[in-house]
Amino acid sequence: MTSRRVGLDVGGTKCLGVALDEHGSITQELRHATPKSPEGIIDVLVDLAQSLGPFGSVGVGVPGLVTRDGVLRAAPNLIDINDFQVGSLLSDRLGVQVEVDNDATCATVAEWKCGAARGSSEFVMVALGTGIGGGIVAGNVLQRGANGFTGEIGHMVVDPDGPPCPCGRRGCWERYASGSGLGRLAREAAVGGRLRLVLDAVGGDAALVRGEEVQVAASAGDLEALAVVDAFARWVALGLVNLTNVLDPALIVLGGGLAASGELYLGAIQRWFTSLLYAPDLRPHPKLAFAELGAHAGAVGAALLTEVH
Amino acid sequence: MTSRRVGLDVGGTKCLGVALDEHGSITQELRHATPKSPEGIIDVLVDLAQSLGPFGSVGVGVPGLVTRDGVLRAAPNLIDINDFQVGSLLSDRLGVQVEVDNDATCATVAEWKCGAARGSSEFVMVALGTGIGGGIVAGNVLQRGANGFTGEIGHMVVDPDGPPCPCGRRGCWERYASGSGLGRLAREAAVGGRLRLVLDAVGGDAALVRGEEVQVAASAGDLEALAVVDAFARWVALGLVNLTNVLDPALIVLGGGLAASGELYLGAIQRWFTSLLYAPDLRPHPKLAFAELGAHAGAVGAALLTEVH
Repeated sequence: MTSRRVGLDVGGTKCLGVALDEHGSITQELRHATPKSPEGIIDVLVDLAQSLGPFGSVGVGVPGLVTRDGVLRAAPNLIDINDFQVGSLLSDRLGVQVEVDNDATCATVAEWKCGAARGSSEFVMVALGTGIGGGIVAGNVLQRGANGFTGEIGHMVVDPDGPPCPCGRRGCWERYASGSGLGRLAREAAVGGRLRLVLDAVGGDAALVRGEEVQVAASAGDLEALAVVDAFARWVALGLVNLTNVLDPALIVLGGGLAASGELYLGAIQRWFTSLLYAPDLRPHPKLAFAELGAHAGAVGAALLTEVH
Repeated sequence: MTSRRVGLDVGGTKCLGVALDEHGSITQELRHATPKSPEGIIDVLVDLAQSLGPFGSVGVGVPGLVTRDGVLRAAPNLIDINDFQVGSLLSDRLGVQVEVDNDATCATVAEWKCGAARGSSEFVMVALGTGIGGGIVAGNVLQRGANGFTGEIGHMVVDPDGPPCPCGRRGCWERYASGSGLGRLAREAAVGGRLRLVLDAVGGDAALVRGEEVQVAASAGDLEALAVVDAFARWVALGLVNLTNVLDPALIVLGGGLAASGELYLGAIQRWFTSLLYAPDLRPHPKLAFAELGAHAGAVGAALLTEVH
């Protein structure tokens, strides 16, 4: 029996598969466009796993609520489906037990076993992308919760009268502190006349302002763009503070697409973190670090699920 | 060596001591006024423990941030002190290891071992008193965090532009969802002309309206008081939802002073909980239950700390 572990990460546009050797290093990787149907997704995952094989174990990361027994309960950004039996369908086809978990949980496992949180027994992973996903290691155990849904941190409500969230509620943290949140804060600033150079750069239409333009302008020293970055950092810090008040982690790992330009925000996040934390003078603050595994985190963590489930 | 376990709970006005038999039942209890000095508190705790002895173990619950090695870092509602070495001072005097933890954490342990959360491996304790304290059991382990400060849930920020909190920040959950929060919501309603019968009952001065009057009026069916109860329940639910999104518990135990009249709020809390939870139709909701150990929870849990630390 080979010890090769295969991890599969189902994204909105593509599926990534990796094979890990016994040290957790990637020996091979493959990509395929994500089909639009559940049957198509299963076919692609079977094909990726078999192409990466022979394997001793297979794990899968999917975007959505995943039950403890590997059922994808819903995945609003992927396919219109309730209760997709990813785990058992793949097990039947591949002939091995297949572990399934939320993609942000997989990224948490990857950073814990091979990345920025190696050796940490108390940390929170915060994946700042289009939305915000997360994962929790407490007491040196990956926490999964009663149903497997631990870590839906993006939907903490931070302003109950805030802007509507696609999830149906208002003022969810990810309305402010994700990539979408940065874009929204930027457009508000542009409409309010507080982002003039960026607005000129997109031809004067505030609706065209995105987070990327603000990042570029802030990196170049534009004070109005830096003010948007500061407002954004305050919202990021607020959620990190809430997680710290609840969980007292030693470390917070910032991942997701925004972490790639994280140095732009880190100072402001740390300043706001100190200002918003309960009893900041009386406690060690968690270390803030950036994720190390980048776009591979989901697939690598999926391959490692057998170690932690 | 006796197996009798003594638990001591240091409150703002009194200290409560209990002795537990091997089944966890209270065999004896004693009270003493809480002194104003650290030396006085140690003397009272030694006296209570010795009066309740002979003991096999001693545990103490204190209101404030307690480190993993039994140091009370700060206790703003108790005494003006930083770093009170409760654990080691008592150990020296009593000749046994003394476990110390936050009073809400002790209440969590009590409900877990002998109360409403007996047998639960995934639950959150929410103590709604003057402020809001809490504790977390996840993966069948009492979570303490990197420093021992897990469960400061009252200081989750739920509105960053909200009213100032004595902790120095704004919009902490306990500004809304605690006993103090209910009073504040009631006074706002009275000032706004939306609590006329209650206002009449206190002689027309909105500053005199307290949560208790609202409870009485709401219990009697006053619609304006019921509206305040509903607003209060929305804030309670919002924090419970945030904890559920983060931790996915199977059970939330509501304790503290407000739980005593909890039936008045429960229906509204459950309604708002469903309305604010992420993906409410796709997941089992945690059960909401009331704490069973009442005012004894802190002392009983302190006596049981040796089982969980």
